[in-house]
Amino acid sequence: MIKIIIGTNRINANSEKIANIYQEILKSLGETSEIINLNELPDDFVFTALYEFNGKNLDFNVIHDQVKTGKKFVFIVPEYNGSFPGILKSFIDGMTYPNSFRAKKCALVGLSSGIGGGAIAMSHLTDIFNYLGMHVLAFKPRLAKIEENMSEDLLTNRLYLDLLKEQAQLLIDF
Amino acid sequence: MIKIIIGTNRINANSEKIANIYQEILKSLGETSEIINLNELPDDFVFTALYEFNGKNLDFNVIHDQVKTGKKFVFIVPEYNGSFPGILKSFIDGMTYPNSFRAKKCALVGLSSGIGGGAIAMSHLTDIFNYLGMHVLAFKPRLAKIEENMSEDLLTNRLYLDLLKEQAQLLIDF
Amino acid sequence: MIKIIIGTNRINANSEKIANIYQEILKSLGETSEIINLNELPDDFVFTALYEFNGKNLDFNVIHDQVKTGKKFVFIVPEYNGSFPGILKSFIDGMTYPNSFRAKKCALVGLSSGIGGGAIAMSHLTDIFNYLGMHVLAFKPRLAKIEENMSEDLLTNRLYLDLLKEQAQLLIDF
Amino acid sequence: MIKIIIGTNRINANSEKIANIYQEILKSLGETSEIINLNELPDDFVFTALYEFNGKNLDFNVIHDQVKTGKKFVFIVPEYNGSFPGILKSFIDGMTYPNSFRAKKCALVGLSSGIGGGAIAMSHLTDIFNYLGMHVLAFKPRLAKIEENMSEDLLTNRLYLDLLKEQAQLLIDF
Repeated sequence: MIKIIIGTNRINANSEKIANIYQEILKSLGETSEIINLNELPDDFVFTALYEFNGKNLDFNVIHDQVKTGKKFVFIVPEYNGSFPGILKSFIDGMTYPNSFRAKKCALVGLSSGIGGGAIAMSHLTDIFNYLGMHVLAFKPRLAKIEENMSEDLLTNRLYLDLLKEQAQLLIDF
Repeated sequence: MIKIIIGTNRINANSEKIANIYQEILKSLGETSEIINLNELPDDFVFTALYEFNGKNLDFNVIHDQVKTGKKFVFIVPEYNGSFPGILKSFIDGMTYPNSFRAKKCALVGLSSGIGGGAIAMSHLTDIFNYLGMHVLAFKPRLAKIEENMSEDLLTNRLYLDLLKEQAQLLIDF
Repeated sequence: MIKIIIGTNRINANSEKIANIYQEILKSLGETSEIINLNELPDDFVFTALYEFNGKNLDFNVIHDQVKTGKKFVFIVPEYNGSFPGILKSFIDGMTYPNSFRAKKCALVGLSSGIGGGAIAMSHLTDIFNYLGMHVLAFKPRLAKIEENMSEDLLTNRLYLDLLKEQAQLLIDF
Repeated sequence: MIKIIIGTNRINANSEKIANIYQEILKSLGETSEIINLNELPDDFVFTALYEFNGKNLDFNVIHDQVKTGKKFVFIVPEYNGSFPGILKSFIDGMTYPNSFRAKKCALVGLSSGIGGGAIAMSHLTDIFNYLGMHVLAFKPRLAKIEENMSEDLLTNRLYLDLLKEQAQLLIDF
């Protein structure tokens, strides 16, 4: 069972579409998965679930528990302002100690409107996950110019699809 | 007029104390300043001030306007989970286009409970600010083991105080 | 007088061609410049000019002195193996203390065969230069797919040329 | 068989001493290892083994072959000028395609005279190795103020020794 985390709370985000595609890929490889969408977090969790409120926001805990029970993760990471969305870091900041990612494994997928493909975003996130003790799969596809490579809910760029499939198999074997 | 941004919403944060000390230092150097505390942001701003809601949250806009009118900034950056707090990035993600930091200048101060002094946090933030077109002062003091070097609201480590003074003067001249 | 450093020792590198173009741009803006080519370094400098040999390799010192007298620099940075060339870091490692970049200013230009444009390379280099006390201009053009955008010694991509011109002016004013 | 790479060519480097200690630890855990010392590289390899000379320097190839046959690596990484030594990157730049690290696994140990412990150096190196397709163990001990924590060839800091042992076991199981 792999947990796929949509790394933004933007409504109808491309990250959500990619998460759905990724779930299909995992299914075709015989692997079950579950999608965790950050837009389902309580609106005020940054002020009610962190620091002295750690673990005390019951609605936050529901989603946090989905992370705790996971062993392997896929993070769909859109590039915002040269890195990943702040909400993804706040979500991590809300986790209880000892952290929920320690000794687990994950794969990162970068998305961007521009040419970067989220390279810097994934570099930052790798620093953080390594700090927390989570191993990050070396292979991190960068889906640049994502709008030009999607049509409705589909990835029209065959290379991108192949990259996701290759990564999914690597994560299963990681 | 320099804007000092407290990079967390944690209540009674050490970052807030350092911000106050920094303001005193700037005053002693003949420079006015204003403190912007992220804990004054609307609790739900991550869900009501970003993306399609950009610029539409009036309470968020009040604080955002304080940034817009600034030319030079100091960011007090505590290390959380191997980087800077997610709320700081969400605050940046809530800014309107063209971004409010373009062609401006800033200084970064890192804080940590452990030995890192926020080095990685400041590296990540430099990537983001450079992406947004804001110049970052090269000199970035790392206040490691911050709890051991403060007493009440005071910095007891003379070296740390000297580092902040040196940086403050450099920022004035930047 | 701006020093333009070709960040590789590869013969006939695209970085060398871009350095020449940059020099022309600076000239058109009324600024003199000098090109420092790392392929002129002594072949064995990594073993004869660093650590205990610091400052003792006379041929290395000639090029090092060109850096010492500079106040502003442009680094042309090709992406090799996901970062910048090792020789550029070894060149920096060979500099004498107090370091030759302290309190100076520089601009970075990234080049890549692929889509990255040297974003990560420039991020790493910014960390290093900031550590050494050199301010890095926020605006860092990424010249991706460089081979497709050059013909002989010329940049055929007008946008790339405009980015370099914009940066050159910003560096003059920095 | 694990390959331990001393990430510098400095003579009598602390990294060499740590490599020896690491080899003893691996031995005590029942694992064989081999040390690769970058100071055994040909003095001019940066000019005779890279780019068009790739694979053509026979002395370089001997050491390169030691890497090629490896499956798991430990890199002892001293902090120089805010990152890792340039020679380590040049060594990587000299490797033939398809690269010798693809789909392999490694562990990083950071060393510094100051308080950083090589955190940024290891972050940069992780970016590079991930780019090359090598998985990096999340747990990366930072041996700060290394001179104060060694006596002759021994680590006197018990915590540091425990960190290396913990990492060594994790690498064996990785």
